[in-house]
Amino acid sequence: MNAAILCLDLGGTNARLGLVSIDGRVLQRRRWKMSPPGNADSLYDYLGNRIVRFMSGVGTGSRPAAVVIGFAGPTWSAGGYVYCSPNIGQLAGLNIGPELSQRLSMPVLVANDANCAALGEYWRGAGAGTGSMFLFTIGTGVGGGLVADGELWEGSAGIAGEVGHTVVAIDGPMCTCGSRGCLEALVSATAIVRAYRKVLPGGLDHGVPITAKMIFARARHGDAAARAVIARAGKALGVGIANVYHLLNPEVIVIGGGVGRAGRLLIAPAVEMARGLVFGPLRDRLRVSRAKLGDDAALIGGAYLASRKLGL
Amino acid sequence: MNAAILCLDLGGTNARLGLVSIDGRVLQRRRWKMSPPGNADSLYDYLGNRIVRFMSGVGTGSRPAAVVIGFAGPTWSAGGYVYCSPNIGQLAGLNIGPELSQRLSMPVLVANDANCAALGEYWRGAGAGTGSMFLFTIGTGVGGGLVADGELWEGSAGIAGEVGHTVVAIDGPMCTCGSRGCLEALVSATAIVRAYRKVLPGGLDHGVPITAKMIFARARHGDAAARAVIARAGKALGVGIANVYHLLNPEVIVIGGGVGRAGRLLIAPAVEMARGLVFGPLRDRLRVSRAKLGDDAALIGGAYLASRKLGL
Repeated sequence: MNAAILCLDLGGTNARLGLVSIDGRVLQRRRWKMSPPGNADSLYDYLGNRIVRFMSGVGTGSRPAAVVIGFAGPTWSAGGYVYCSPNIGQLAGLNIGPELSQRLSMPVLVANDANCAALGEYWRGAGAGTGSMFLFTIGTGVGGGLVADGELWEGSAGIAGEVGHTVVAIDGPMCTCGSRGCLEALVSATAIVRAYRKVLPGGLDHGVPITAKMIFARARHGDAAARAVIARAGKALGVGIANVYHLLNPEVIVIGGGVGRAGRLLIAPAVEMARGLVFGPLRDRLRVSRAKLGDDAALIGGAYLASRKLGL
Repeated sequence: MNAAILCLDLGGTNARLGLVSIDGRVLQRRRWKMSPPGNADSLYDYLGNRIVRFMSGVGTGSRPAAVVIGFAGPTWSAGGYVYCSPNIGQLAGLNIGPELSQRLSMPVLVANDANCAALGEYWRGAGAGTGSMFLFTIGTGVGGGLVADGELWEGSAGIAGEVGHTVVAIDGPMCTCGSRGCLEALVSATAIVRAYRKVLPGGLDHGVPITAKMIFARARHGDAAARAVIARAGKALGVGIANVYHLLNPEVIVIGGGVGRAGRLLIAPAVEMARGLVFGPLRDRLRVSRAKLGDDAALIGGAYLASRKLGL
């Protein structure tokens, strides 16, 4: 029997469960649309049942040694505590680690989803072989994570890496967190859709909601407004990259997440902007790469986290 | 004979030399106005002679075991290399560590001045007893440094902590580094003077150049324009504090440097702004303190750096 870790990546829309071997291979995965119940007790039941059901389909050859749950939002992994989770509001303030651990009779760790993805990319993806890496995950929101010398930098309260809520434009557009000018309010899928709607008034979406994916597709087909909106988001991302470089100076900065994967139209202006901002003599040392593991990053990183924290 | 470290803190206007005991006491200090010569060779002579002259006045009881030189600007301490130094331009690209080491026949380390100050405050000042600390030094420019678990976080090329050149206002005012909207362009003494001049056109300085110190004095005596300018700088500093908190989440954030010492008029709006930006459930955990060591911080931190790097 080989040790494996069960990793649950809880997004606002989709959830993913993966059984990951101790050396970082995803052995089995499942994905479903989230519909979490409203109160704490039934939320514990909901998550517990999902996990038990998934495990019952797993061969006896690899019973998981631990569960890792990745959430959007600040999480204090040592205590198993979720400060707040914008996508699943009812998680806020819950000490979910110990509670689920009791129900499942095995260790349950909680972590920030972007931190898990950062660990995954560092271990088996775009950061492999480097001494330090910072990951930006750009999707509905913007997250981040710093890994150095094999360890996640969590900070004193576990919230380090929250690059999406660093402010790059005082008095900039409103963010979901209540502040103004956060990177998330300028670069996320949500921000790109909002900016595109502004330059195309009159409901050009013909009743179909516009998504960031559609805006990228239009840009690739030559839509000038879509290109301009994405280029502006790219410049803001470039500021975020340069800020991370000046503050943390990681060996490589990796861009992942759904929007990050959308590609060159966003990344090219971002890298150009970042290079322009970084101290002249250090421009050539700035390394920006695309993430390699796609949606598996957080699952694989979760397994890495568990194996480090539990000494597996 | 007790081991001691000779620390040289090279500012653009003033230079300070200090002999610091291995346990962090400044045994002797000297300060002078900088007038560095223009070419590399005579610059080595100038610095070498200053150091030799200072040492000749030191009792034989404590001959220094090493020299540490702190510069403004990005520095790669492992190689003794200075990428660029805004205050002493002729230092850029010099491999000053090995060169001076040969002339003085002892180890010479180079470091960023704010990093030295951060180590000093962590060791013997406002960060003592904490697990992680970020220092903002606010003077002519804005610098910073991160110390965690007793180690300076230098990053892959030695420039980590350069918070002064993180951008908080895309399209903001021009910075000395060539970018726009850097924290330094909004919070430094230079920025405060520039902003005050703008709201008081017509040369209210009566031929005497206005300094940040004078603006703080006027604010304390009720000058509304001075108060408004300082409050605006404080808000920008608050953004910087919140950004550092979200990205690095240190146990304490310390504010030092000449402008930082000027006090409450700047710090109060900064802390208020930062608390407003930090994730709600974590607001109470944000700790901002004033630096304690004044100008000695970089000297004391230099000694700490040398004792760690050289195993003294």
